Amino acid sequence: MNANPVFSLHIPTKILFGCGELRKLATEKLPGKKALIVISSGTSMKKYGYLDKVVELLQENNTESIVYDKILPNPIKSHVMEAASVCREQKCDFIVGLGGGSSIDSAKAIAVMACNDGDYWDYIPAGSGKGRPVTKALPVIAIPTTAGTGTEADPWSVITNEEAKEKIGFGSTLTFPVLSIIDPELMVSIPPHLTAYQGFDAFFHAAEGFLANCATPISDLYALEAIRLLYKYLPVAVKDGRNLKARAKVAWASTLAGLVEATSCCISEHSMEHAMSAFHPELPHGSGLIAISEAYFETFRNDCMKRYMKMAEIMTQQKSNRPSDFIDALVRMQKECNVYQLKLSDWGVKEEELPLMVQNARDTMGSLFTLDPRPLTDEEVLQIYQKSFR
Amino acid sequence: MNANPVFSLHIPTKILFGCGELRKLATEKLPGKKALIVISSGTSMKKYGYLDKVVELLQENNTESIVYDKILPNPIKSHVMEAASVCREQKCDFIVGLGGGSSIDSAKAIAVMACNDGDYWDYIPAGSGKGRPVTKALPVIAIPTTAGTGTEADPWSVITNEEAKEKIGFGSTLTFPVLSIIDPELMVSIPPHLTAYQGFDAFFHAAEGFLANCATPISDLYALEAIRLLYKYLPVAVKDGRNLKARAKVAWASTLAGLVEATSCCISEHSMEHAMSAFHPELPHGSGLIAISEAYFETFRNDCMKRYMKMAEIMTQQKSNRPSDFIDALVRMQKECNVYQLKLSDWGVKEEELPLMVQNARDTMGSLFTLDPRPLTDEEVLQIYQKSFR
Repeated sequence: MNANPVFSLHIPTKILFGCGELRKLATEKLPGKKALIVISSGTSMKKYGYLDKVVELLQENNTESIVYDKILPNPIKSHVMEAASVCREQKCDFIVGLGGGSSIDSAKAIAVMACNDGDYWDYIPAGSGKGRPVTKALPVIAIPTTAGTGTEADPWSVITNEEAKEKIGFGSTLTFPVLSIIDPELMVSIPPHLTAYQGFDAFFHAAEGFLANCATPISDLYALEAIRLLYKYLPVAVKDGRNLKARAKVAWASTLAGLVEATSCCISEHSMEHAMSAFHPELPHGSGLIAISEAYFETFRNDCMKRYMKMAEIMTQQKSNRPSDFIDALVRMQKECNVYQLKLSDWGVKEEELPLMVQNARDTMGSLFTLDPRPLTDEEVLQIYQKSFR
Repeated sequence: MNANPVFSLHIPTKILFGCGELRKLATEKLPGKKALIVISSGTSMKKYGYLDKVVELLQENNTESIVYDKILPNPIKSHVMEAASVCREQKCDFIVGLGGGSSIDSAKAIAVMACNDGDYWDYIPAGSGKGRPVTKALPVIAIPTTAGTGTEADPWSVITNEEAKEKIGFGSTLTFPVLSIIDPELMVSIPPHLTAYQGFDAFFHAAEGFLANCATPISDLYALEAIRLLYKYLPVAVKDGRNLKARAKVAWASTLAGLVEATSCCISEHSMEHAMSAFHPELPHGSGLIAISEAYFETFRNDCMKRYMKMAEIMTQQKSNRPSDFIDALVRMQKECNVYQLKLSDWGVKEEELPLMVQNARDTMGSLFTLDPRPLTDEEVLQIYQKSFR
């Protein structure tokens, strides 16, 4: 990073944070009178009463709503297209993304396709996408019930084109949520292993954004605070999901890491994971990142030594004089969260797929490789996969 | 602050930061085709060519402009009203505030009065103001040429009602600039004593916002980084105004401190200074703050000991175990900036005015006293003035 950096900061989203803040949905000025609520195909939004609560609060705010409930953990383009069509037919004014990153990311993509013709991939500027410009989108309200993606504080939407086997992140100023309500009380029911996967997703948003060659003074500020909070509180939240203080700290760290994504960027670790999920949609995003993380961060250990030591210091709160202190702290954190040494083969990845995944990572999310601390060769990328395989 | 705080973050302003970034005025999407450029009655905007440059860049961006050049260091209501009238007559679409806080604050107030009838004080919700609601305002672009007010990153506008002797801060979501360009190259010509006054204004925005009982995790993050940067780089910028690295660090700290004002709030130190400036408009705002600061921060020394020690630690980068370490560091910083022991009597304040200023501070900016770490008595406020008098 330059000594006199040039950078920008523009986060138009209004963020409301805190236990119980969901109730503000009944009193905030909303961007319309009819909402499409987007949730996953799972049962939790209904089982825990979150969906009913959101419908009720919208009603209190004189807003009717309909529900689209088919979103998969790795959300797919055909659902985006279907929901956008429902949205047009039903004349919805805005979209509410309720749930994990998959629902909120889908809400953003649906908001785009509710106002633009053709296919969603026509607008994707990577892979087999056509890169048509997006000039309008419906407003989105994000209500995360997990702490990991940070999508509530950034413009990005990650959707998988199931035919093309491409999982690509896309967004613009138009796809920042207009309002995000982060209420840690909605997160207490997440089981320990998912808490860990999601929390590490946030951790890597921050760590990658801190190492990216486009990092700025403002993204660094957000990143280091997210890293500090996650190192301290993620193991607590994993061990005791009812601990609201830890849940709140992890939720805030995740939002901060979203701000990192809005002001810096992920690097090739995310490209590599997207390729893995594109081949194995059942692989949880966070666990894929965890699986490759040790080998991945080893690769850049001597390329940005000061930044590794800075991350180690903010984690351990002790002076660091070796970049490997960061790897040590990362391993310790993974052990405390019971997610150390996840392996790609655990999720059915086959060894012969690894070279194909290298190619897929380059083809679909190649731009993130240009933000790495130094250029990686295909051989190095393959080695990271191989070291993380078994 | 609560262990599980509830807070919000909403900074709609697009901030462009960096040396040379002023040129982006020629390429950014502007909120209209005709601008009213608001500058001070001083000579520097013309002498250093900043005004010509801005006019030229707006032209490149197909935007015409007219200039209002009467703003005083403590800007007054009658100029706001006059400029708003010019703005209506000339059918300007937006306002550019170019210069120090006085010009940018005036630009915000002019933006309000260009769209609302009656008198500016009809809309002020304190002092003798009538508190009418503001529902619209023209867009504002802020181009600061000083590093101190932070007004480029917050909604506040501080205007003096010269008849009522009231200097009151006011703003809403509508008065956030839509675009702020912070270019440290525009700041190299500021003389050392003004660099120090302005830099300490930023420092107190951060320190007060960190002590305010409405501080939040996000305002704390901005505040501590602003305090760290100013302690380290303000003395460098004061000693060598051509040092662009130091200028950039101080400018960024000032913007961060503006973000503190947008997410937390100043406390009664600012109310006390506003009363001083209301009586003595020739008193530079920053020097008034410096003059009362030692006595002021002594007053709360045992009320938020951890936060004092945290500020001391971020300044000195050493472990602190006494709240007075912060006062010591503050004094050291003032000595290095050649502004230690400024006294109210140096600016012609008379001893018999002090009780009147106590009353004025309560009447006009009383709300900030409610955000203090603990309630101050009038006697305590008077004592701070008295200790800072001679």
